[in-house]
Amino acid sequence: MSNFSFQCQARCGHTHARTGVFSTPHGIVETPRFMPVGTLANVKTLTPAQLKETGAQMVLSNTYHLHLQPGEEIVKRAGGVHKFMGWSGPMLTDSGGFQVFSLSEMRSITDDGVTFRSPRDGQMIHLTPERSIQIQNALGADVIMAFDECPPPGVGRDAVEKATERTYDWLKRCIQAHERSDQALFGIVQGGEYLDLRAEAVRMLTDLDLPGYAIGGVSVGEAPEVIDQVVQATAPLLPLDKPRYLMGVGTYREMVRAIAAGIDLFDCVIPTRLARHGSALVGGERWNVKNARFREDFTPLDASCPCYTCQNFTRAYLSHLLRAQELLAYTLLSIHNITELVGFTQRIRAAIAEGTFTEEFARWLAPIG
Amino acid sequence: MSNFSFQCQARCGHTHARTGVFSTPHGIVETPRFMPVGTLANVKTLTPAQLKETGAQMVLSNTYHLHLQPGEEIVKRAGGVHKFMGWSGPMLTDSGGFQVFSLSEMRSITDDGVTFRSPRDGQMIHLTPERSIQIQNALGADVIMAFDECPPPGVGRDAVEKATERTYDWLKRCIQAHERSDQALFGIVQGGEYLDLRAEAVRMLTDLDLPGYAIGGVSVGEAPEVIDQVVQATAPLLPLDKPRYLMGVGTYREMVRAIAAGIDLFDCVIPTRLARHGSALVGGERWNVKNARFREDFTPLDASCPCYTCQNFTRAYLSHLLRAQELLAYTLLSIHNITELVGFTQRIRAAIAEGTFTEEFARWLAPIG
Ligand SMILES: [Zn+2]
Ligand SMILES: [Zn+2]
Repeated sequence: MSNFSFQCQARCGHTHARTGVFSTPHGIVETPRFMPVGTLANVKTLTPAQLKETGAQMVLSNTYHLHLQPGEEIVKRAGGVHKFMGWSGPMLTDSGGFQVFSLSEMRSITDDGVTFRSPRDGQMIHLTPERSIQIQNALGADVIMAFDECPPPGVGRDAVEKATERTYDWLKRCIQAHERSDQALFGIVQGGEYLDLRAEAVRMLTDLDLPGYAIGGVSVGEAPEVIDQVVQATAPLLPLDKPRYLMGVGTYREMVRAIAAGIDLFDCVIPTRLARHGSALVGGERWNVKNARFREDFTPLDASCPCYTCQNFTRAYLSHLLRAQELLAYTLLSIHNITELVGFTQRIRAAIAEGTFTEEFARWLAPIG
Repeated sequence: MSNFSFQCQARCGHTHARTGVFSTPHGIVETPRFMPVGTLANVKTLTPAQLKETGAQMVLSNTYHLHLQPGEEIVKRAGGVHKFMGWSGPMLTDSGGFQVFSLSEMRSITDDGVTFRSPRDGQMIHLTPERSIQIQNALGADVIMAFDECPPPGVGRDAVEKATERTYDWLKRCIQAHERSDQALFGIVQGGEYLDLRAEAVRMLTDLDLPGYAIGGVSVGEAPEVIDQVVQATAPLLPLDKPRYLMGVGTYREMVRAIAAGIDLFDCVIPTRLARHGSALVGGERWNVKNARFREDFTPLDASCPCYTCQNFTRAYLSHLLRAQELLAYTLLSIHNITELVGFTQRIRAAIAEGTFTEEFARWLAPIG
């Protein structure tokens, strides 16, 4: 795995928080860092040039969605997902597992894999660990994820235990199927809300000496305090010298508390989804920019924000674009929201390095729930 | 009118075509040049930074639409339309006349003005020449247009004659109402398909010594050959030392033939409208990028095009974005389509300067109809 390395740089004296540099064939990721999501090989409404200006370093794309449209063969023939979408920085693809379990009309789950109906054309699709890795090898992201089973919350301990065991068996098949040394395969810790199952999963995964580890199954509908408990108990068990990725999480408080537990990487669709609903992330809050109070407010969204939107436009203008249903509103709000969340993790990184993390972010470190 | 000047630079030896530089308080416009339309204080899906990269110099915005949303008072308090939308180059607003006559539920037209129902909130709005100029003075574009009556085609000579006379009376009221020397008020030549009415209108308008002249009422539904006849007969009658603007026209052939008749400026919503429908302007043709033949075409839309889209993405990627209904497709196609039309007029400008206009653009100079 000489194509990848993770160097821990600074550690917080009071928490498990750390700063690091994750090196990939397409550049470095300075951690902790928020990663925007480009589901269909684009971060919605942003060009790669705009995306780069937000400070984003690593970008996600979705195996499940790209398999359905345009199909991994087209992406491969285009030269891989980086070239296809014009993003030259680090990329990560999920395995499709989460989407198969959350978005599809499921037909069957066996030890071999899952069968589901394509929402695009109604055809039955059979996805296995091997198939997921083949697709991700074809897409060509720097980091690829193991194909895992994500049980919904509330199914009970037996079902979670079974899914966790199956996820481990599938991981070994993923490792076998994986063919490219310029892609790092991350394992995913499952185990639901059961801390002992999580701990056991960490032990088994750590023995496989993978280039990185993710905590999965935490953004599938559980209460925030349950997610927090899992993260607080599980993250510190993961190897110190590998990047740690908390999947699907991206709110201010969840990120701060997860960073305190030792998490390095996050992804979430929230900045672009909020933009589509006319909302902006400002100073830790969500603002509805369609609110009447912004109609005649000629100040920037956030005067302290370095983004293109805040440097060039007023709240009144954004309010106007939203009221006029102009698509440019979504672009400008997405630019700001991604800049805000990436910048938030950058500020945390700086605070950890300076030894001021727990002071500066005390507001966010209070227990969840 | 020391804030404005028009310098003719080169003239074609075979046609009325010319190159020039139109100077405004916000910069120059090198003519002939296509102007993109930013109806609601934004060119749909493009940031001002992206718009600037297309080569656009002067941008339009619409008085009627901005009066309804957000209202000219908000734009004025924002510092004018340039500052509001973040465009620092030359701008032009139409008078609202065309939209009132084409988009509104009209209630009455009298010598005083027009009364119509607002499509936004159903309220009755009374628009007069004075009111149109007040609104345009508040918006603050460099060039503002006289408030004119645009009769639909086929109403007959008497109705057109009456509308042309009323347009002239309204123009004199516009001149009286106009209060800002940093805005140039252009007159609009009406007269429908009647060449003698057009010629008479030119004579009367020229006597008023305005800083620029437009040919209006040519994009309201007439046959292309009728528009062409009007332009060929009318444009050469306009003063040589003033910019000439053909309103609402922006197809390749119409522009080339109008330039040959001496027109300098064009505007049309076609590049952004085509983008929203998934179409690209390439080498004088309209391509439906959703067409199956582009799905696996890994070449740029137009290898000779300098635009961001053609420099960074393939037809296959654009096809994918369109099939996935990703809004980024409209941004990328709009960037290309505007670059294409602006670049087309820039190439014509270069050819006129080099004396090769009629040779190089012979394909487009053949009579219409
Ligand atoms: Zn911002
Ligand atoms: Zn192009």
